[in-house]
Amino acid sequence: MVVKVYGPEYASTKRVILALVEMGIDYEVVKVDLFKGEHKTPEFLKLQPFGVVPVVQDGDYTLYESRAIIRYYAEKYKSELLGKTIEERGLVEQWLEIEAHNFHPLVYDLVVQVLFNPKLGIPTNLERVKEDDEKLARVLDVYEERLSQSKYLVGDSFTLADLSHIPFTQFLGSLGKEHLLRDRKHVSAWWDDISSRPSWKKVHELYPAPI
Amino acid sequence: MVVKVYGPEYASTKRVILALVEMGIDYEVVKVDLFKGEHKTPEFLKLQPFGVVPVVQDGDYTLYESRAIIRYYAEKYKSELLGKTIEERGLVEQWLEIEAHNFHPLVYDLVVQVLFNPKLGIPTNLERVKEDDEKLARVLDVYEERLSQSKYLVGDSFTLADLSHIPFTQFLGSLGKEHLLRDRKHVSAWWDDISSRPSWKKVHELYPAPI
Repeated sequence: MVVKVYGPEYASTKRVILALVEMGIDYEVVKVDLFKGEHKTPEFLKLQPFGVVPVVQDGDYTLYESRAIIRYYAEKYKSELLGKTIEERGLVEQWLEIEAHNFHPLVYDLVVQVLFNPKLGIPTNLERVKEDDEKLARVLDVYEERLSQSKYLVGDSFTLADLSHIPFTQFLGSLGKEHLLRDRKHVSAWWDDISSRPSWKKVHELYPAPI
Repeated sequence: MVVKVYGPEYASTKRVILALVEMGIDYEVVKVDLFKGEHKTPEFLKLQPFGVVPVVQDGDYTLYESRAIIRYYAEKYKSELLGKTIEERGLVEQWLEIEAHNFHPLVYDLVVQVLFNPKLGIPTNLERVKEDDEKLARVLDVYEERLSQSKYLVGDSFTLADLSHIPFTQFLGSLGKEHLLRDRKHVSAWWDDISSRPSWKKVHELYPAPI
Protein backbone atom coordinates (compact mmCIF):
# COMPACT_ATOMS: atom_id res chain seq x y z
CA MET A 1 0.00 0.00 0.00
CA VAL A 2 1.48 3.31 -1.10
CA VAL A 3 1.11 6.13 1.40
CA LYS A 4 -0.87 9.05 0.01
CA VAL A 5 0.45 12.42 1.20
CA TYR A 6 -1.69 15.53 0.84
CA GLY A 7 0.33 18.67 0.33
CA PRO A 8 3.02 18.33 -0.90
CA GLU A 9 5.09 21.47 -1.43
CA TYR A 10 4.53 23.20 1.90
CA ALA A 11 7.15 23.04 4.60
CA SER A 12 5.13 21.02 7.11
CA THR A 13 4.32 18.45 4.45
CA LYS A 14 7.99 18.31 3.51
CA ARG A 15 8.68 17.26 7.11
CA VAL A 16 6.52 14.19 6.43
CA ILE A 17 7.91 13.43 2.97
CA LEU A 18 11.46 13.81 4.31
CA ALA A 19 10.71 11.22 7.01
CA LEU A 20 9.19 8.82 4.46
CA VAL A 21 12.20 9.18 2.13
CA GLU A 22 14.58 8.78 5.08
CA MET A 23 12.86 5.46 5.91
CA GLY A 24 12.53 4.29 2.31
CA ILE A 25 8.74 4.26 2.39
CA ASP A 26 6.92 4.57 -0.95
CA TYR A 27 4.46 7.43 -1.22
CA GLU A 28 2.43 9.36 -3.73
CA VAL A 29 1.35 12.96 -3.44
CA VAL A 30 -2.04 14.63 -3.80
CA LYS A 31 -1.70 18.31 -4.61
CA VAL A 32 -3.67 20.66 -2.39
CA ASP A 33 -3.44 24.26 -3.56
CA LEU A 34 -3.77 26.46 -0.49
CA PHE A 35 -3.83 29.60 -2.61
CA LYS A 36 -6.98 28.27 -4.30
CA GLY A 37 -8.49 27.33 -0.93
CA GLU A 38 -8.46 23.61 -1.69
CA HIS A 39 -7.79 22.91 2.00
CA LYS A 40 -11.18 24.37 2.92
CA THR A 41 -13.39 22.28 0.62
CA PRO A 42 -15.97 19.98 2.31
CA GLU A 43 -14.12 17.01 0.83
CA PHE A 44 -10.77 18.02 2.33
CA LEU A 45 -12.36 18.95 5.67
CA LYS A 46 -13.63 15.38 5.95
CA LEU A 47 -9.99 14.27 5.93
CA GLN A 48 -8.60 17.09 8.07
CA PRO A 49 -11.33 18.97 9.93
CA PHE A 50 -9.06 21.92 10.81
CA GLY A 51 -8.35 22.50 7.10
CA VAL A 52 -4.56 22.32 7.04
CA VAL A 53 -1.96 20.13 5.36
CA PRO A 54 -0.41 17.59 5.67
CA VAL A 55 -2.62 14.56 5.90
CA VAL A 56 -1.63 10.99 5.05
CA GLN A 57 -3.87 8.15 4.00
CA ASP A 58 -2.43 4.70 4.37
CA GLY A 59 -5.07 2.20 3.34
CA ASP A 60 -8.00 3.06 5.57
CA TYR A 61 -5.81 4.75 8.19
CA THR A 62 -5.83 8.55 8.07
CA LEU A 63 -3.45 10.67 10.13
CA TYR A 64 -2.64 14.37 10.31
CA GLU A 65 -0.29 16.71 12.17
CA SER A 66 3.18 16.37 10.66
CA ARG A 67 4.99 15.61 13.91
CA ALA A 68 2.47 12.88 14.77
CA ILE A 69 2.89 11.35 11.31
CA ILE A 70 6.69 11.22 11.48
CA ARG A 71 6.52 9.61 14.94
CA TYR A 72 4.03 7.03 13.65
CA TYR A 73 6.20 5.91 10.74
CA ALA A 74 9.36 5.89 12.85
CA GLU A 75 7.59 3.79 15.49
CA LYS A 76 6.49 1.38 12.79
CA TYR A 77 9.58 1.13 10.60
CA LYS A 78 12.67 2.73 12.17
CA SER A 79 12.34 3.23 15.88
CA GLU A 80 16.00 4.27 16.29
CA LEU A 81 14.93 7.61 14.81
CA LEU A 82 13.08 8.04 18.11
CA GLY A 83 16.18 7.25 20.20
CA LYS A 84 17.81 3.99 21.25
CA THR A 85 16.59 3.93 24.85
CA ILE A 86 13.56 5.24 26.70
CA GLU A 87 15.73 8.03 28.12
CA GLU A 88 16.93 9.02 24.65
CA ARG A 89 13.37 8.92 23.42
CA GLY A 90 12.39 11.31 26.20
CA LEU A 91 15.01 13.74 24.95
CA VAL A 92 13.94 13.29 21.32
CA GLU A 93 10.41 14.17 22.44
CA GLN A 94 11.77 17.18 24.36
CA TRP A 95 13.58 18.50 21.27
CA LEU A 96 10.57 17.81 19.04
CA GLU A 97 8.59 20.01 21.43
CA ILE A 98 11.30 22.70 21.44
CA GLU A 99 11.25 22.70 17.65
CA ALA A 100 7.46 23.04 17.69
CA HIS A 101 7.20 25.70 20.41
CA ASN A 102 10.45 27.67 20.50
CA PHE A 103 11.89 27.44 16.99
CA HIS A 104 9.08 26.95 14.50
CA PRO A 105 6.76 29.83 15.49
CA LEU A 106 9.54 32.40 15.08
CA VAL A 107 10.67 31.16 11.68
CA TYR A 108 7.06 30.80 10.58
CA ASP A 109 6.28 34.37 11.58
CA LEU A 110 9.37 35.63 9.74
CA VAL A 111 8.26 33.74 6.64
CA VAL A 112 4.82 35.34 6.83
CA GLN A 113 6.18 38.83 7.47
CA VAL A 114 9.11 38.82 5.05
CA LEU A 115 8.09 36.44 2.26
CA PHE A 116 4.30 36.19 2.21
CA ASN A 117 2.98 39.60 3.24
CA PRO A 118 4.73 41.54 0.45
CA LYS A 119 3.22 39.12 -2.10
CA LEU A 120 -0.23 39.68 -0.60
CA GLY A 121 0.18 43.45 -0.52
CA ILE A 122 0.31 43.48 3.30
CA PRO A 123 3.05 45.66 4.82
CA THR A 124 5.81 43.81 6.64
CA ASN A 125 5.80 44.60 10.36
CA LEU A 126 9.46 45.54 10.76
CA GLU A 127 9.29 45.82 14.53
CA ARG A 128 7.97 42.28 14.75
CA VAL A 129 10.68 41.05 12.37
CA LYS A 130 13.29 42.61 14.65
CA GLU A 131 11.74 40.98 17.72
CA ASP A 132 11.53 37.56 16.04
CA ASP A 133 15.12 37.92 14.94
CA GLU A 134 16.34 38.66 18.44
CA LYS A 135 14.29 35.86 19.97
CA LEU A 136 15.52 33.39 17.35
CA ALA A 137 19.12 34.36 18.09
CA ARG A 138 18.56 33.56 21.78
CA VAL A 139 16.90 30.24 20.93
CA LEU A 140 19.81 29.30 18.68
CA ASP A 141 22.23 30.14 21.49
CA VAL A 142 20.63 27.28 23.42
CA TYR A 143 21.05 25.03 20.40
CA GLU A 144 24.71 26.06 20.15
CA GLU A 145 25.30 25.06 23.75
CA ARG A 146 23.53 21.75 23.21
CA LEU A 147 25.36 20.98 19.96
CA SER A 148 28.71 21.75 21.56
CA GLN A 149 28.07 18.64 23.66
CA SER A 150 26.82 16.19 21.06
CA LYS A 151 26.86 15.94 17.28
CA TYR A 152 23.07 15.84 17.01
CA LEU A 153 20.37 17.25 19.26
CA VAL A 154 20.13 13.91 21.05
CA GLY A 155 23.45 12.08 21.19
CA ASP A 156 25.56 10.96 18.28
CA SER A 157 22.81 9.78 15.96
CA PHE A 158 20.42 11.62 13.70
CA THR A 159 16.87 11.43 15.07
CA LEU A 160 13.45 12.89 14.36
CA ALA A 161 14.45 15.80 16.61
CA ASP A 162 16.97 16.88 13.96
CA LEU A 163 14.80 15.90 11.00
CA SER A 164 11.87 17.95 12.20
CA HIS A 165 13.94 21.15 11.99
CA ILE A 166 15.05 20.80 8.39
CA PRO A 167 12.22 22.25 6.24
CA PHE A 168 11.83 25.44 8.24
CA THR A 169 15.57 25.93 8.82
CA GLN A 170 15.97 25.89 5.04
CA PHE A 171 13.90 29.09 4.98
CA LEU A 172 16.58 31.06 6.80
CA GLY A 173 18.51 31.39 3.52
CA SER A 174 15.48 32.80 1.64
CA LEU A 175 14.89 35.14 4.58
CA GLY A 176 18.44 36.50 4.37
CA LYS A 177 19.08 35.18 7.86
CA GLU A 178 21.53 32.35 7.27
CA HIS A 179 23.99 34.27 9.46
CA LEU A 180 21.94 33.11 12.46
CA LEU A 181 23.24 29.62 11.67
CA ARG A 182 26.71 30.60 10.44
CA ASP A 183 27.52 32.77 13.45
CA ARG A 184 27.29 29.68 15.64
CA LYS A 185 30.04 27.13 15.02
CA HIS A 186 28.21 24.02 16.19
CA VAL A 187 24.81 25.00 14.81
CA SER A 188 26.51 25.71 11.49
CA ALA A 189 28.20 22.29 11.39
CA TRP A 190 24.93 20.61 12.41
CA TRP A 191 23.02 22.35 9.63
CA ASP A 192 25.67 21.38 7.06
CA ASP A 193 25.40 17.80 8.24
CA ILE A 194 21.63 17.40 8.37
CA SER A 195 20.88 19.42 5.24
CA SER A 196 23.32 17.34 3.17
CA ARG A 197 21.55 14.07 3.88
CA PRO A 198 20.46 12.41 0.60
CA SER A 199 16.86 12.38 1.87
CA TRP A 200 16.69 16.17 2.19
CA LYS A 201 18.59 16.73 -1.06
CA LYS A 202 15.92 14.69 -2.80
CA VAL A 203 12.96 16.40 -1.11
CA HIS A 204 14.44 19.87 -1.59
CA GLU A 205 15.03 19.13 -5.28
CA LEU A 206 11.47 17.83 -5.71
CA TYR A 207 9.89 20.81 -3.91
CA PRO A 208 12.36 23.67 -4.01
CA ALA A 209 9.90 26.54 -3.60
CA PRO A 210 10.48 28.18 -0.22
CA ILE A 211 6.88 28.05 0.94
CA MET B 1 14.33 7.64 43.45
CA VAL B 2 11.61 10.27 43.88
CA VAL B 3 10.96 12.43 40.84
CA LYS B 4 11.58 16.10 41.51
CA VAL B 5 9.09 18.39 39.70
CA TYR B 6 9.85 22.09 39.33
CA GLY B 7 6.75 24.23 39.26
CA PRO B 8 4.38 23.11 40.64
CA GLU B 9 1.20 25.24 40.59
CA TYR B 10 1.18 26.33 36.97
CA ALA B 11 -1.07 24.59 34.47
CA SER B 12 1.70 23.05 32.35
CA THR B 13 3.32 21.61 35.45
CA LYS B 14 -0.04 20.25 36.55
CA ARG B 15 -0.12 18.30 33.28
CA VAL B 16 3.04 16.52 34.48
CA ILE B 17 1.91 16.01 38.08
CA LEU B 18 -1.43 14.69 36.84
CA ALA B 19 0.38 12.10 34.71
CA LEU B 20 2.59 11.07 37.64
CA VAL B 21 -0.42 10.70 39.96
CA GLU B 22 -2.32 8.80 37.27
CA MET B 23 0.59 6.32 37.07
CA GLY B 24 1.19 6.14 40.81
CA ILE B 25 4.71 7.58 40.57
CA ASP B 26 6.11 9.24 43.70
CA TYR B 27 7.24 12.82 43.27
CA GLU B 28 8.26 15.87 45.25
CA VAL B 29 7.86 19.47 44.17
CA VAL B 30 10.32 22.35 44.03
CA LYS B 31 8.55 25.69 44.09
CA VAL B 32 9.54 28.11 41.34
CA ASP B 33 7.88 31.49 41.74
CA LEU B 34 7.44 32.96 38.27
CA PHE B 35 6.19 36.25 39.71
CA LYS B 36 9.54 36.63 41.50
CA GLY B 37 11.44 35.67 38.34
CA GLU B 38 12.83 32.49 39.84
CA HIS B 39 12.63 30.84 36.40
CA LYS B 40 15.23 33.27 35.06
CA THR B 41 17.98 32.73 37.64
CA PRO B 42 21.31 31.33 36.36
CA GLU B 43 20.72 28.24 38.50
CA PHE B 44 17.30 27.54 36.96
CA LEU B 45 18.54 28.30 33.44
CA LYS B 46 21.10 25.53 33.85
CA LEU B 47 18.19 23.13 34.26
CA GLN B 48 15.89 24.69 31.64
CA PRO B 49 17.76 27.05 29.30
CA PHE B 50 14.56 28.64 27.95
CA GLY B 51 13.52 29.65 31.47
CA VAL B 52 10.11 28.01 31.73
CA VAL B 53 8.49 25.38 33.94
CA PRO B 54 8.06 22.44 34.23
CA VAL B 55 11.30 20.52 34.55
CA VAL B 56 11.73 17.12 36.14
CA GLN B 57 14.85 15.65 37.66
CA ASP B 58 14.88 11.91 38.07
CA GLY B 59 18.25 10.92 39.49
CA ASP B 60 20.71 12.38 37.00
CA TYR B 61 18.14 12.49 34.20
CA THR B 62 16.66 15.93 33.52
CA LEU B 63 13.75 16.49 31.17
CA TYR B 64 11.59 19.45 30.28
CA GLU B 65 8.58 20.25 28.07
CA SER B 66 5.45 18.90 29.75
CA ARG B 67 4.21 16.85 26.81
CA ALA B 68 7.63 15.21 26.42
CA ILE B 69 7.69 14.38 30.14
CA ILE B 70 4.27 12.75 30.16
CA ARG B 71 5.19 10.66 27.10
CA TYR B 72 8.44 9.58 28.80
CA TYR B 73 6.75 8.33 31.95
CA ALA B 74 3.93 6.64 30.03
CA GLU B 75 6.50 4.91 27.81
CA LYS B 76 8.34 3.73 30.91
CA TYR B 77 5.48 2.75 33.22
CA LYS B 78 2.11 2.67 31.50
CA SER B 79 2.37 2.47 27.75
CA GLU B 80 -1.38 1.88 27.28
CA LEU B 81 -1.77 5.62 28.00
CA LEU B 82 -0.10 6.04 24.60
CA GLY B 83 -2.55 3.68 22.87
CA LYS B 84 -2.73 -0.09 22.59
CA THR B 85 -1.45 -0.41 19.02
CA ILE B 86 0.92 1.56 16.80
CA GLU B 87 -2.11 2.92 14.95
CA GLU B 88 -3.75 4.06 18.17
CA ARG B 89 -0.49 5.62 19.26
CA GLY B 90 -0.40 7.58 15.99
CA LEU B 91 -3.82 8.99 16.84
CA VAL B 92 -2.80 9.75 20.43
CA GLU B 93 0.16 11.69 18.99
CA GLN B 94 -2.19 13.46 16.58
CA TRP B 95 -4.48 14.58 19.40
CA LEU B 96 -1.55 15.60 21.58
CA GLU B 97 -0.49 17.84 18.71
CA ILE B 98 -4.02 19.20 18.25
CA GLU B 99 -4.14 20.01 21.97
CA ALA B 100 -0.78 21.78 21.69
CA HIS B 101 -1.45 23.70 18.48
CA ASN B 102 -5.22 24.18 18.12
CA PHE B 103 -6.60 24.14 21.64
CA HIS B 104 -3.93 25.30 24.08
CA PRO B 105 -2.86 28.59 22.40
CA LEU B 106 -6.44 29.90 22.39
CA VAL B 107 -7.14 29.04 26.03
CA TYR B 108 -3.72 30.35 27.04
CA ASP B 109 -4.35 33.63 25.26
CA LEU B 110 -7.76 33.96 26.93
CA VAL B 111 -6.14 33.34 30.32
CA VAL B 112 -3.57 36.07 29.65
CA GLN B 113 -6.16 38.54 28.35
CA VAL B 114 -8.95 37.90 30.84
CA LEU B 115 -7.21 36.74 34.04
CA PHE B 116 -3.61 38.00 33.97
CA ASN B 117 -3.66 41.35 32.19
CA PRO B 118 -6.16 42.99 34.58
CA LYS B 119 -3.94 41.94 37.51
CA LEU B 120 -0.92 43.45 35.79
CA GLY B 121 -2.74 46.67 34.92
CA ILE B 122 -2.70 45.85 31.20
CA PRO B 123 -6.00 46.45 29.37
CA THR B 124 -7.76 43.33 28.09
CA ASN B 125 -7.89 43.27 24.30
CA LEU B 126 -11.61 42.62 23.86
CA GLU B 127 -11.40 42.15 20.11
CA ARG B 128 -8.83 39.42 20.60
CA VAL B 129 -10.95 37.76 23.28
CA LYS B 130 -13.85 37.69 20.84
CA GLU B 131 -11.66 36.18 18.12
CA ASP B 132 -10.22 33.54 20.47
CA ASP B 133 -13.70 32.70 21.62
CA GLU B 134 -14.98 32.17 18.10
CA LYS B 135 -11.94 30.14 17.11
CA LEU B 136 -12.22 27.99 20.23
CA ALA B 137 -15.88 27.29 19.47
CA ARG B 138 -14.91 26.06 16.00
CA VAL B 139 -12.13 23.88 17.44
CA LEU B 140 -14.54 22.37 19.95
CA ASP B 141 -16.97 21.61 17.13
CA VAL B 142 -14.31 19.28 15.77
CA TYR B 143 -13.94 17.70 19.22
CA GLU B 144 -17.72 17.26 19.39
CA GLU B 145 -17.72 15.39 16.11
CA ARG B 146 -14.83 13.21 17.25
CA LEU B 147 -16.35 12.49 20.65
CA SER B 148 -19.67 11.56 19.07
CA GLN B 149 -17.79 8.57 17.64
CA SER B 150 -15.79 7.39 20.63
CA LYS B 151 -15.89 7.92 24.38
CA TYR B 152 -12.38 9.37 24.50
CA LEU B 153 -10.34 11.22 21.89
CA VAL B 154 -8.74 7.95 20.82
CA GLY B 155 -11.07 4.98 21.21
CA ASP B 156 -12.70 3.76 24.37
CA SER B 157 -9.81 4.24 26.77
CA PHE B 158 -8.43 7.30 28.51
CA THR B 159 -5.03 8.23 27.04
CA LEU B 160 -2.48 11.02 27.29
CA ALA B 161 -4.44 12.78 24.54
CA ASP B 162 -7.29 13.31 27.00
CA LEU B 163 -5.04 13.88 30.01
CA SER B 164 -3.09 16.62 28.29
CA HIS B 165 -6.24 18.72 27.91
CA ILE B 166 -7.29 18.72 31.56
CA PRO B 167 -5.34 21.56 33.24
CA PHE B 168 -6.13 24.17 30.62
CA THR B 169 -9.74 23.04 30.11
CA GLN B 170 -10.24 23.62 33.84
CA PHE B 171 -9.59 27.32 33.14
CA LEU B 172 -12.75 27.65 31.07
CA GLY B 173 -14.78 27.89 34.29
CA SER B 174 -12.63 30.72 35.69
CA LEU B 175 -12.87 32.43 32.31
CA GLY B 176 -16.66 32.32 32.39
CA LYS B 177 -16.60 30.15 29.27
CA GLU B 178 -17.78 26.80 30.53
CA HIS B 179 -20.70 27.10 28.12
CA LEU B 180 -18.23 26.25 25.34
CA LEU B 181 -18.12 22.77 26.88
CA ARG B 182 -21.74 22.56 28.04
CA ASP B 183 -23.21 23.57 24.67
CA ARG B 184 -21.71 20.43 23.16
CA LYS B 185 -23.25 17.21 24.41
CA HIS B 186 -20.31 14.87 23.83
CA VAL B 187 -17.63 17.37 24.84
CA SER B 188 -19.60 18.03 28.01
CA ALA B 189 -19.83 14.32 28.89
CA TRP B 190 -16.12 13.87 28.09
CA TRP B 191 -15.16 16.76 30.37
CA ASP B 192 -17.33 15.38 33.19
CA ASP B 193 -15.66 12.03 32.78
CA ILE B 194 -12.02 13.09 32.57
CA SER B 195 -12.25 15.85 35.17
CA SER B 196 -13.77 13.48 37.72
CA ARG B 197 -10.85 11.07 37.65
CA PRO B 198 -9.33 10.68 41.13
CA SER B 199 -5.95 11.80 39.74
CA TRP B 200 -7.27 15.20 38.65
CA LYS B 201 -9.37 15.63 41.79
CA LYS B 202 -6.18 15.20 43.80
CA VAL B 203 -4.06 17.55 41.67
CA HIS B 204 -6.79 20.17 41.50
CA GLU B 205 -7.19 20.04 45.28
CA LEU B 206 -3.44 20.36 45.82
CA TYR B 207 -3.06 23.25 43.39
CA PRO B 208 -6.46 24.87 42.99
CA ALA B 209 -5.30 28.33 41.90
CA PRO B 210 -6.36 28.93 38.31
CA ILE B 211 -2.94 29.95 37.02
